[in-house]
Amino acid sequence: MPYINIRITDENVSNEQKQALIRGATQLMADVLNKPPHVTFVVIDEVPTDNWGIGFDQVTEIRKAQSQQ
Amino acid sequence: MPYINIRITDENVSNEQKQALIRGATQLMADVLNKPPHVTFVVIDEVPTDNWGIGFDQVTEIRKAQSQQ
Amino acid sequence: MPYINIRITDENVSNEQKQALIRGATQLMADVLNKPPHVTFVVIDEVPTDNWGIGFDQVTEIRKAQSQQ
Amino acid sequence: MPYINIRITDENVSNEQKQALIRGATQLMADVLNKPPHVTFVVIDEVPTDNWGIGFDQVTEIRKAQSQQ
Amino acid sequence: MPYINIRITDENVSNEQKQALIRGATQLMADVLNKPPHVTFVVIDEVPTDNWGIGFDQVTEIRKAQSQQ
Amino acid sequence: MPYINIRITDENVSNEQKQALIRGATQLMADVLNKPPHVTFVVIDEVPTDNWGIGFDQVTEIRKAQSQQ
Repeated sequence: MPYINIRITDENVSNEQKQALIRGATQLMADVLNKPPHVTFVVIDEVPTDNWGIGFDQVTEIRKAQSQQ
Repeated sequence: MPYINIRITDENVSNEQKQALIRGATQLMADVLNKPPHVTFVVIDEVPTDNWGIGFDQVTEIRKAQSQQ
Repeated sequence: MPYINIRITDENVSNEQKQALIRGATQLMADVLNKPPHVTFVVIDEVPTDNWGIGFDQVTEIRKAQSQQ
Repeated sequence: MPYINIRITDENVSNEQKQALIRGATQLMADVLNKPPHVTFVVIDEVPTDNWGIGFDQVTEIRKAQSQQ
Repeated sequence: MPYINIRITDENVSNEQKQALIRGATQLMADVLNKPPHVTFVVIDEVPTDNWGIGFDQVTEIRKAQSQQ
Repeated sequence: MPYINIRITDENVSNEQKQALIRGATQLMADVLNKPPHVTFVVIDEVPTDNWGIGFDQVTEIRKAQSQQ
């Protein structure tokens, strides 16, 4: 009965990408741990870039700096 | 000091239902563990059905299939 | 497909109490939201009292103060 | 590699406050545990006041009662 | 900067399996979302079977019933 | 009513360090958001280094490589 919580920044994740994350994470549990997919939950949280920090900075600021390079 | 996190799909949960979840979960902590309600937190997360997967599928797809039966 | 995470301090929670928490939380999802129990997960985390703080203090210290009253 | 998840009610938190939370939490990890900031994640979740309960009540109701005092 | 939290029951997960989960989840983020592995965290929580419920029952009880079939 | 979850690797964190994390995180909520400490929870999770991955590798392996430098 695995529960996999994928937390990522909210940056235009497409529906196809969400499906690929769900399938891939569920398959990983089946392949590695032999967990049955019908009791494997995958929950994706899309976090605003203002709300995610790394190295003292908001991801919003990091993206701005990257786009100026 | 319990912290209860209820994660459900975002499918028209009414305010009355939210109140019932908060009251019920808080009462459960008081009944079973004798925890004082004033330090019991209940946090409800409503997750978009595109972001919740079970059995390789998004809940969005599961709901579509169910409505066609 | 609810996922309920109950986080409590690790203070001699009995197996009967764990069963009561699991049953009560699962029933709450069925009663309030009509969620099917076979896809309702309840996960209990028992956190050491040294690792839980409230009002600046570890619960370990709060318990000591309470036992001296 | 700390991961700090700050969950607060969604009540007009400004961007400056978010930056202060990220900086403060990252600095705390560096000061207390000597953790390098470039691998310290801070994730802020803003939860609607209808979805947060304490002492049986939604924070929405608590705020209404406070504003009438 | 993804954060992936894999919560599973504590049932003799080997170190090789943990490595496979970490590699697989990190690769999934790179393949699907183009996320750089050096800022991808994977955290595995092993939860005692007494503390995980599904369908009103502890996993401990479910395992006992399965082993008797 | 903030809830702050600090997830770190389980590497000899002392009780004094835990107290400093609890005090610092609680103070941060008071300073930045004017949140009252008596309803601020801080929960520290110490995760085994085998269970935490970054950049495809377990922290256990990263620490071994660092100690050989």
